[in-house]
Amino acid sequence: MRVVGLGPGDPSWLLPEAAEALDWATDLVGYGPYLDMVPSRLASGAVRHGSDNRVEIQRARHALEMAAAGRRVAVISSGDPGVFAMASAVLEAQFDTEALPAWTQVRVRIVPGVSAAFAAASRVGAPLGHDFCVISLSDNLKPWSVIERRVRAALEADLVLALYNPVSRHRPHQLGVALDLVRSLRPPSTPVVMARDVGRPGEAVTVTSVGEMDAGICDMRTVILVGSTTTRVHEGAAGPVVITPRSYP
Amino acid sequence: MRVVGLGPGDPSWLLPEAAEALDWATDLVGYGPYLDMVPSRLASGAVRHGSDNRVEIQRARHALEMAAAGRRVAVISSGDPGVFAMASAVLEAQFDTEALPAWTQVRVRIVPGVSAAFAAASRVGAPLGHDFCVISLSDNLKPWSVIERRVRAALEADLVLALYNPVSRHRPHQLGVALDLVRSLRPPSTPVVMARDVGRPGEAVTVTSVGEMDAGICDMRTVILVGSTTTRVHEGAAGPVVITPRSYP
Repeated sequence: MRVVGLGPGDPSWLLPEAAEALDWATDLVGYGPYLDMVPSRLASGAVRHGSDNRVEIQRARHALEMAAAGRRVAVISSGDPGVFAMASAVLEAQFDTEALPAWTQVRVRIVPGVSAAFAAASRVGAPLGHDFCVISLSDNLKPWSVIERRVRAALEADLVLALYNPVSRHRPHQLGVALDLVRSLRPPSTPVVMARDVGRPGEAVTVTSVGEMDAGICDMRTVILVGSTTTRVHEGAAGPVVITPRSYP
Repeated sequence: MRVVGLGPGDPSWLLPEAAEALDWATDLVGYGPYLDMVPSRLASGAVRHGSDNRVEIQRARHALEMAAAGRRVAVISSGDPGVFAMASAVLEAQFDTEALPAWTQVRVRIVPGVSAAFAAASRVGAPLGHDFCVISLSDNLKPWSVIERRVRAALEADLVLALYNPVSRHRPHQLGVALDLVRSLRPPSTPVVMARDVGRPGEAVTVTSVGEMDAGICDMRTVILVGSTTTRVHEGAAGPVVITPRSYP
């Protein structure tokens, strides 16, 4: 069985190993819109098992069940399956107390991909060029106090922050709290990048600052990069260029 | 001009956009051993400008000079150029006080790749499945006190750590100090992954623990992943499987 990262969605950012895994599979399992991102030239004969967004564990069990029965299953993830995506869900399901003994014998190969923060970074320069931290703001599965503690620690240690899952219908207010924390611990001039759907139709990347940033333009498909005190912006030939230099004063 | 990530080295982990950029280039600029990693079917007609490891800024200036003169230049990076690699160096050189005005007009496109931590993670399961921090232990360009503060902050906030550049001839002792900090702030049973040359000949991945880890097996080509208090190891069909679950108690 393979857990396959599609990257952001653009086929030019799909690893050859991922393309090979899609072609190998008899069954594709994933969130419907991600299955739709699989290039049609790949996996043309495979059965597609689409499912809803919030059912990762059921999806993982279904995939393990089919793999244990001898099917060649590819579980589809956007970005890198190892970063806030399907790799954890599949492996948790494989080894949890409700797992069937046959499931633990399934060989699961993780095929990496380009996660959203790195796709976003590449569009604006090198904001992640130095030490950074990657934090999901979703409190579906962890207490908000843990998130706040981590954001605060990263800010106090002057790390660049990459924030995933900033906002959703079920939690409209948490992003505001996190950004208030950013405002209280970073100078207003600190560069901020808000990137939505990078590598997909409708890509929108905004370079702004801690003083000017607007939570209103973010949704669950946005990734937010907050600079450190050394991150700076230059005016390049094709727009703003964000750099976190390699050296630290 | 393009700054191109080769990923770890295996062609199955080279993005199509990177392959296209290599074919487009008239000139390849990079650290010698990375130029050697460019698949021979690509960039066959390009001039290769190899240089030594510690001369990133000179290399970047040379690349900008050629690009400003109309050459199609690809600067080669291993991994993701945006993560402790050539993107920062090129963009710093482009906008620093010694840059020629023509250089700032060069359009620099960053082509992402798979950075070492994510390649390593994919080999052992999903150790980076939840909030994590990426820190370089190199004190060539930043004070050791900053590194120590960041490692401590990440440990105290219970983030998974990915440590790059753990050791070199010039700084044999810093890794020991960092690992002592890990030992003092994480339980001995916490999983640790030490991965060298993932995706290259001689790949070696060791799954160990804070109590058992041995700095002696690390060199500058090793990346170290230190689990959080929720990271755990299961015995899978093909060896140990490391998981940082999506939920936090």
